[in-house]
Amino acid sequence: MTTLALPFARPPEAVLIEPFVRRALEEDVGAGDITSALIVPPDKTVSARLVPRKHGTIAGLIAAECAFRLIAADAAFRCGLPDGSVASEGSVIATIEGPARAILIAERVALNFVGHLSGIATATSALVDTVKGTKARIVDTRKTTPGLRLLEKYAVRCGGGFNHRFGLHDAVLIKDNHIAVAGSLAEAVCRARAGTAHMPKIEVEADTLVQLEEALSLGVYTILLDNMRLEDLRRAVGMANGRAVLEASGNVTLATVRAIAETGVDYISSGAITHSAPNLDVALDF
Amino acid sequence: MTTLALPFARPPEAVLIEPFVRRALEEDVGAGDITSALIVPPDKTVSARLVPRKHGTIAGLIAAECAFRLIAADAAFRCGLPDGSVASEGSVIATIEGPARAILIAERVALNFVGHLSGIATATSALVDTVKGTKARIVDTRKTTPGLRLLEKYAVRCGGGFNHRFGLHDAVLIKDNHIAVAGSLAEAVCRARAGTAHMPKIEVEADTLVQLEEALSLGVYTILLDNMRLEDLRRAVGMANGRAVLEASGNVTLATVRAIAETGVDYISSGAITHSAPNLDVALDF
Amino acid sequence: MTTLALPFARPPEAVLIEPFVRRALEEDVGAGDITSALIVPPDKTVSARLVPRKHGTIAGLIAAECAFRLIAADAAFRCGLPDGSVASEGSVIATIEGPARAILIAERVALNFVGHLSGIATATSALVDTVKGTKARIVDTRKTTPGLRLLEKYAVRCGGGFNHRFGLHDAVLIKDNHIAVAGSLAEAVCRARAGTAHMPKIEVEADTLVQLEEALSLGVYTILLDNMRLEDLRRAVGMANGRAVLEASGNVTLATVRAIAETGVDYISSGAITHSAPNLDVALDF
Amino acid sequence: MTTLALPFARPPEAVLIEPFVRRALEEDVGAGDITSALIVPPDKTVSARLVPRKHGTIAGLIAAECAFRLIAADAAFRCGLPDGSVASEGSVIATIEGPARAILIAERVALNFVGHLSGIATATSALVDTVKGTKARIVDTRKTTPGLRLLEKYAVRCGGGFNHRFGLHDAVLIKDNHIAVAGSLAEAVCRARAGTAHMPKIEVEADTLVQLEEALSLGVYTILLDNMRLEDLRRAVGMANGRAVLEASGNVTLATVRAIAETGVDYISSGAITHSAPNLDVALDF
Amino acid sequence: MTTLALPFARPPEAVLIEPFVRRALEEDVGAGDITSALIVPPDKTVSARLVPRKHGTIAGLIAAECAFRLIAADAAFRCGLPDGSVASEGSVIATIEGPARAILIAERVALNFVGHLSGIATATSALVDTVKGTKARIVDTRKTTPGLRLLEKYAVRCGGGFNHRFGLHDAVLIKDNHIAVAGSLAEAVCRARAGTAHMPKIEVEADTLVQLEEALSLGVYTILLDNMRLEDLRRAVGMANGRAVLEASGNVTLATVRAIAETGVDYISSGAITHSAPNLDVALDF
Amino acid sequence: MTTLALPFARPPEAVLIEPFVRRALEEDVGAGDITSALIVPPDKTVSARLVPRKHGTIAGLIAAECAFRLIAADAAFRCGLPDGSVASEGSVIATIEGPARAILIAERVALNFVGHLSGIATATSALVDTVKGTKARIVDTRKTTPGLRLLEKYAVRCGGGFNHRFGLHDAVLIKDNHIAVAGSLAEAVCRARAGTAHMPKIEVEADTLVQLEEALSLGVYTILLDNMRLEDLRRAVGMANGRAVLEASGNVTLATVRAIAETGVDYISSGAITHSAPNLDVALDF
Repeated sequence: MTTLALPFARPPEAVLIEPFVRRALEEDVGAGDITSALIVPPDKTVSARLVPRKHGTIAGLIAAECAFRLIAADAAFRCGLPDGSVASEGSVIATIEGPARAILIAERVALNFVGHLSGIATATSALVDTVKGTKARIVDTRKTTPGLRLLEKYAVRCGGGFNHRFGLHDAVLIKDNHIAVAGSLAEAVCRARAGTAHMPKIEVEADTLVQLEEALSLGVYTILLDNMRLEDLRRAVGMANGRAVLEASGNVTLATVRAIAETGVDYISSGAITHSAPNLDVALDF
Repeated sequence: MTTLALPFARPPEAVLIEPFVRRALEEDVGAGDITSALIVPPDKTVSARLVPRKHGTIAGLIAAECAFRLIAADAAFRCGLPDGSVASEGSVIATIEGPARAILIAERVALNFVGHLSGIATATSALVDTVKGTKARIVDTRKTTPGLRLLEKYAVRCGGGFNHRFGLHDAVLIKDNHIAVAGSLAEAVCRARAGTAHMPKIEVEADTLVQLEEALSLGVYTILLDNMRLEDLRRAVGMANGRAVLEASGNVTLATVRAIAETGVDYISSGAITHSAPNLDVALDF
Repeated sequence: MTTLALPFARPPEAVLIEPFVRRALEEDVGAGDITSALIVPPDKTVSARLVPRKHGTIAGLIAAECAFRLIAADAAFRCGLPDGSVASEGSVIATIEGPARAILIAERVALNFVGHLSGIATATSALVDTVKGTKARIVDTRKTTPGLRLLEKYAVRCGGGFNHRFGLHDAVLIKDNHIAVAGSLAEAVCRARAGTAHMPKIEVEADTLVQLEEALSLGVYTILLDNMRLEDLRRAVGMANGRAVLEASGNVTLATVRAIAETGVDYISSGAITHSAPNLDVALDF
Repeated sequence: MTTLALPFARPPEAVLIEPFVRRALEEDVGAGDITSALIVPPDKTVSARLVPRKHGTIAGLIAAECAFRLIAADAAFRCGLPDGSVASEGSVIATIEGPARAILIAERVALNFVGHLSGIATATSALVDTVKGTKARIVDTRKTTPGLRLLEKYAVRCGGGFNHRFGLHDAVLIKDNHIAVAGSLAEAVCRARAGTAHMPKIEVEADTLVQLEEALSLGVYTILLDNMRLEDLRRAVGMANGRAVLEASGNVTLATVRAIAETGVDYISSGAITHSAPNLDVALDF
Repeated sequence: MTTLALPFARPPEAVLIEPFVRRALEEDVGAGDITSALIVPPDKTVSARLVPRKHGTIAGLIAAECAFRLIAADAAFRCGLPDGSVASEGSVIATIEGPARAILIAERVALNFVGHLSGIATATSALVDTVKGTKARIVDTRKTTPGLRLLEKYAVRCGGGFNHRFGLHDAVLIKDNHIAVAGSLAEAVCRARAGTAHMPKIEVEADTLVQLEEALSLGVYTILLDNMRLEDLRRAVGMANGRAVLEASGNVTLATVRAIAETGVDYISSGAITHSAPNLDVALDF
Repeated sequence: MTTLALPFARPPEAVLIEPFVRRALEEDVGAGDITSALIVPPDKTVSARLVPRKHGTIAGLIAAECAFRLIAADAAFRCGLPDGSVASEGSVIATIEGPARAILIAERVALNFVGHLSGIATATSALVDTVKGTKARIVDTRKTTPGLRLLEKYAVRCGGGFNHRFGLHDAVLIKDNHIAVAGSLAEAVCRARAGTAHMPKIEVEADTLVQLEEALSLGVYTILLDNMRLEDLRRAVGMANGRAVLEASGNVTLATVRAIAETGVDYISSGAITHSAPNLDVALDF
């Protein structure tokens, strides 16, 4: 087994990744791979390479390794690159040697993880690269594929992005519906502060500069500027003037992200990097 | 509770969908929604509508309903359209009435399911519509998001597509690696037939017309033509001449699929409809 | 650890067998084996042999191995024979060496798996041997012990039998109830073909020769002849004349199976091999 | 929903049966029942009856009810007889009314539970009936189908039998291996008494009258007489003379059980009632 | 079913509490309650009251309700007080009416939850009451009973306490070991800021005033003062002078907490409220 | 890996402890340890010692070992003492060497297990030591922390205590409610004997000497004397005079337990040792 340690991307612990991989193997292999079991002799060994068919940022080798290990404890998986690396089309990102049958069985699950997560990492790093030179950081959202958030947020980190909150439990985010129910932003913030201690952050969504002003006057330190025009974002940065951390969201694409970043906001959040990233095509070549 | 029965799309049984939804709720809600719990009074009720922001084919309302029911047994969820329907931008595809706090808690999970699965249904129906008038049917692959295959294959059916095998266990698919190991296609087919009874289908992958010829001569009834040029596909259809069912795969896009269909093949398989379909943007409007 | 690879029987992957064994250990061992823990010193080692008390076909050593491994990682389990082998009364089918306490703890679970699965393999191979020389193959059904289908279908393969479908999801089987609801066999077949792609087989149950005739005229390729008299089975074979694969079911016993096979049918299915096979008595001798 | 309360048989709590039924449904239904979904209209309702094809003792209706309820919450299941009743061939033991599709989907799982558990109940009650008039009670063993012990021990109770211990954790049973390791029975009993409080019973296995004598002299109150001849069993009863409860095991069949009971032993244990009971054939008639 | 909604305590969603209760029922009830099943007739109904034997703060009625509901869907559970209320010895905190057998079965599990969680709530509110009038808030830690954190943190809220982070994943806490590894606090903080976005808080542990000074100079906003003497705590408050939120930990008892609070710190964290709170004795009176 | 085998305490099998530890790791580590991942280099190794801050009886090293092994397979955990040993303040009870990051991640879970279970063992051994010289044994109850019974009953054994029944399934305990429902103790005992075989013990609760007399006259062998005064306990011992095993419960504290033991009862049961034992403070020193 090769250590996949990548300081910055912070892979989840292997023991916590395993349940995801087991579930995927149960779903794909089930009662067994009829084809390989019937055609491939048990003692046939093979050596294969994971090769992206397109240039991209790699994530999920750690899950691929787990899939091969669970099916064939004695197969030797070696990463050519750690998760989070950029790989060019046709390069070898990992090799696997061992029983042919087992490798054929785990192949699709391994590739599905690597393809899906590398797709997210690649989409993220495209945004990250585009805003390079500004101070803006790309962050994800809770718009992830149901059941895969832990891995998808890891893929965002592999792509150079940062993680917003993991769920409803670990931070407060006051949106328009909450404000409407509370009667005013002041009342909503007051309730949130009354019920939380010092660890969960409180972020407030502002759709207009008037709302931003109100949030700033309440001493709110983290503010989400939702769907604001570039001009308003720029003014918002001026109004905050360092008193608050500003996150911009809404209509974030490769075409728009640079201009958004140049307004001076601190964070730009994108749901698309997790929910709409196309798969990175990776194949297992024998 | 509204019945979501859609004859053609065949939703998985509700009892089997529930574990997917529970897992997603655990992941997103965890120790609880701090924001709503602190700001929204428990007796506040609300009425909301699921509204797509773009035109598309809807799938996953059955999971959304489950999410709202698990969090708020007394909320009333009503489908405006069954899964598998085409909805226009801004139309109401479902309504939910009940406790505001519970609806805010389940909102994101419900939307993540509907957005992800409707994205797949929409991508599928785009291909299906494009080949209309030909006899070709669009089928999926095993290139699905790990852990979500059951739901994603359902979304493909909602989009008018058909399902290829569900895993390695329910059909034989002999690919180039198997042939190489067996020494010849004849030997591989022979081993597969020797080890299976009458229920699992045996499909053979052919990359060239020579291989197709060999498969036909062995009486193989289901043949996957992988990455063939249009001209070869046309010839393949002529060679098979009804003796075999032909599936085309490789380089299937909205731009290419019509021409592939017009070669006369029976099935066209696409991994992209499951692994690279962008999310359909659906919102919950209060 | 000894590899248990048996080409023909196709054992399920070890990682997928493990959950069955863990569940059985939790059920039997629970809070611990009071007796052995109190009486057997932890450093006492022992060597034992798995010995059938009756002649039979062995299946499930792969689960026994897993049970011993999970309880005592350092015990050495060695198969004398692979699953699927015929063992005579008193022969040694496996040996286990290691800590006495652990071996006593895992003993019953290991034996329950081997006894149950070998019972199924033995019942299957009795039918298989009886039809030897005819072309008929013995297949199983969905009449399996709830929760153990994956392992029981493996035991059938160990006994030389073949697997029918694994569940309701992987093949179509049109029975009398479906025909009644649809109004006619033609309509039922039409609906099934309209909703499935090329991979799931469509089998039709025929209780009479008239129904068989109708199925053949619709081009149905796989037909289940249910509870037909021998004479009708013979006629059915003549009528089909190679145009369809014929499976006979109903009243299949050691006494009747040879005659059924000699009618010329291709497959004979038996629920009794899974739901009524007596345990094969296997003991652990120290 | 019908209450299935049967005082004597003591069904396990419904909430604890549910996981067994969910597992069985996942295994059998998986991605859905293709056949019924395609052929049976969603609004078609049906009424059906569970009818044994043979005379027997019924067990498992409680699991059947659960299967139908999980698949179709609105189907109406009614027991004609409580679990533990004797039913004659062709009698109606339960009825189910509701959506045809759902009933067809849950049918096989429901029947597999009822058939398997009624088989055990029937085999048990055959022994129970045969010893009627003696004081001997029939008890089960730990030789159960892996993963189903809770339900199988319930089926034994439905058949009028009694339960031996549930696992290695809830009672001490000192066998020959333990005695050998400890050096003597006296030492083994001493260690067991030293390590347990007043609740777990301590049973000792005796293969000979000499061993019985030793156990009695140690004040052991529960003794298992393993594989003794009838004559020795009779002598054992005389020797114990009420000072100990005696359980006979080994070679217990319908042919031998009466004679064993007439020796005067208190309990007769049988592994065959759980591990080798043939299925009771029960069908769902529409 | 009674709604248990308590605005401030924020109970976890019922669907997420259920798995805890199911696990406890499996553990306690297992194969069934022999005693009640044999002695209590199934149609016997009963009415009972949950009554604390000591004055205390109640938490966990929400889990008790779940236990009774899972065992007896038709039992009527009514809370006399919401979780988080103070109850005097002998008062009725909830009533339950329904089948006697079911209520006896669920009794111990229900009481174990209420006793354990009320113990935590009571210990918490003792600290909370003691610091009343100061600005200090009581917070919990990660020193919780393994597997019960979600519920125990809820019990802390019921007692008027606040929650520190839920796990290693939702906030940064830099302790002495991290500083030692990084070489300096400055380097450690720099690495933490480089790798996180705006949502997770960064807290630094300071054992001395020198370390506090360093943290303040780095602009760290949340600082844990570990095991400082009262005098140093007072000085720390002066040094921070509102520039940072200060949490005191170490040697927090009923005897010391008031004095700690009066130093002017913002938060006081206690492991004992979760890991060492004695059970609150609550009984079910019939 | 170090073997932790302690003859008398009988640790549960490692494979059955693992699910408890995995659950605790999921709860604490979740998406990963942000702090360590960002600050501690992956190749940094460390050596640390588990050191109790107070004198106590150790239990749970077996779970700590599992936590470290699951997070860092290559870390070397060595027990200085087996579970069940008495350790003095500041002594080294175990050492761990390996990757710093992994050890920091598993630290809290490991300590939470050791602290909680050692707390129980220490509370138990305090009672055990106090009754030394009498024949009374200390036993636990079903008043355990929900979901942790298996481990907590093990901790009781580590402290020199004994286990009462594990749940409702493995022994009969007839309490006042059962007697009231049955109409009389005689009837309740009769029903219990009618429905159980020889393995589950039948214990009867007696609140008065009159009830004790009745139980003795019915030949009940195991009797729980609940909340009796010392004088009555003494008389009870005289009345039973060896004909029954007597267990005393109610108001058992360090102050009262010696006097209770000196009345001559056989067992003294305490809920407090499991539900109210304060944590034993154990730290990981680097």
